[in-house]
Amino acid sequence: MDGVLADIYAQYIKFEKEFSGIQKQVQELSGLPEPEAFPKCLEYVNTPGFFREAPPIKDSIEGLKWLNLQFKVLIVSSATQFPQSLKEKFDWLQEYYPFISWEQMIFCGKKNSILGDVMIDDHPKNLDPFNGQKLLFTQPHNTGISNSGYIRVENWIEIIKYLS
Amino acid sequence: MDGVLADIYAQYIKFEKEFSGIQKQVQELSGLPEPEAFPKCLEYVNTPGFFREAPPIKDSIEGLKWLNLQFKVLIVSSATQFPQSLKEKFDWLQEYYPFISWEQMIFCGKKNSILGDVMIDDHPKNLDPFNGQKLLFTQPHNTGISNSGYIRVENWIEIIKYLS
Repeated sequence: MDGVLADIYAQYIKFEKEFSGIQKQVQELSGLPEPEAFPKCLEYVNTPGFFREAPPIKDSIEGLKWLNLQFKVLIVSSATQFPQSLKEKFDWLQEYYPFISWEQMIFCGKKNSILGDVMIDDHPKNLDPFNGQKLLFTQPHNTGISNSGYIRVENWIEIIKYLS
Repeated sequence: MDGVLADIYAQYIKFEKEFSGIQKQVQELSGLPEPEAFPKCLEYVNTPGFFREAPPIKDSIEGLKWLNLQFKVLIVSSATQFPQSLKEKFDWLQEYYPFISWEQMIFCGKKNSILGDVMIDDHPKNLDPFNGQKLLFTQPHNTGISNSGYIRVENWIEIIKYLS
């Protein structure tokens, strides 16, 4: 969800400006782990509203709508580390992706006990234990990773092309 | 979680008394599906506090503590149908089972995409799609079910005995 549907970097950048007065550009963050790019990122994600007010990633609404017609889609989101995010994430999904039902949502701690054929995620730690095909969705923190175990997708257009 | 850790029938009976003035005894509910035993059960579970104030099932605290030392335990709970329950369930787990970390929690819609070796649940609909061993935890609504695909456990002592 975060970094594939929810534009978390837009929120990081907004919070960095508000909390620290520093205006970062997404281009300068390429290859940096999130805690290096935003040293206060844990504080940001624990702030009420952080997840609820994130903008959707470009083309993710139309893209997920298409996926949802072709496949049995589950939205699996790491959320229990930040318990206030649970309801925020539910409400956010309902606002932007109302075609996703409550039956398709999984809010978890770790993603290593989820069954499926294809996982789309921006974090290798989530993809690595998965048994199916692994699509690494490009986000600034993962640009330096080249692992033949993942299919890299740069955006939602590439997801659709790969899964068509 | 509900019907294995959380004593949902205690809550149903309490709410039935408060909402309808009817005092039901758990013994008279044997074999009845929940909506027959409590026609307003959907209203009850949508009431703030229903999940947060449920008492833990007898021996579940010591039992889960033991399980958690022997196995990799996940708490998988149907929760997204009642979004207000998400935070309530998290807080409830933290209160009664503080040895369970956020990494071990999964709040979902359906349980048919969860990997594991053993599932303990009171609902056949959750056990049926599971690939591992299926322990049916006795609750009033499931007493009439005799299916050789499940190991029936009457209480937490029987869970421990079976998994020892």
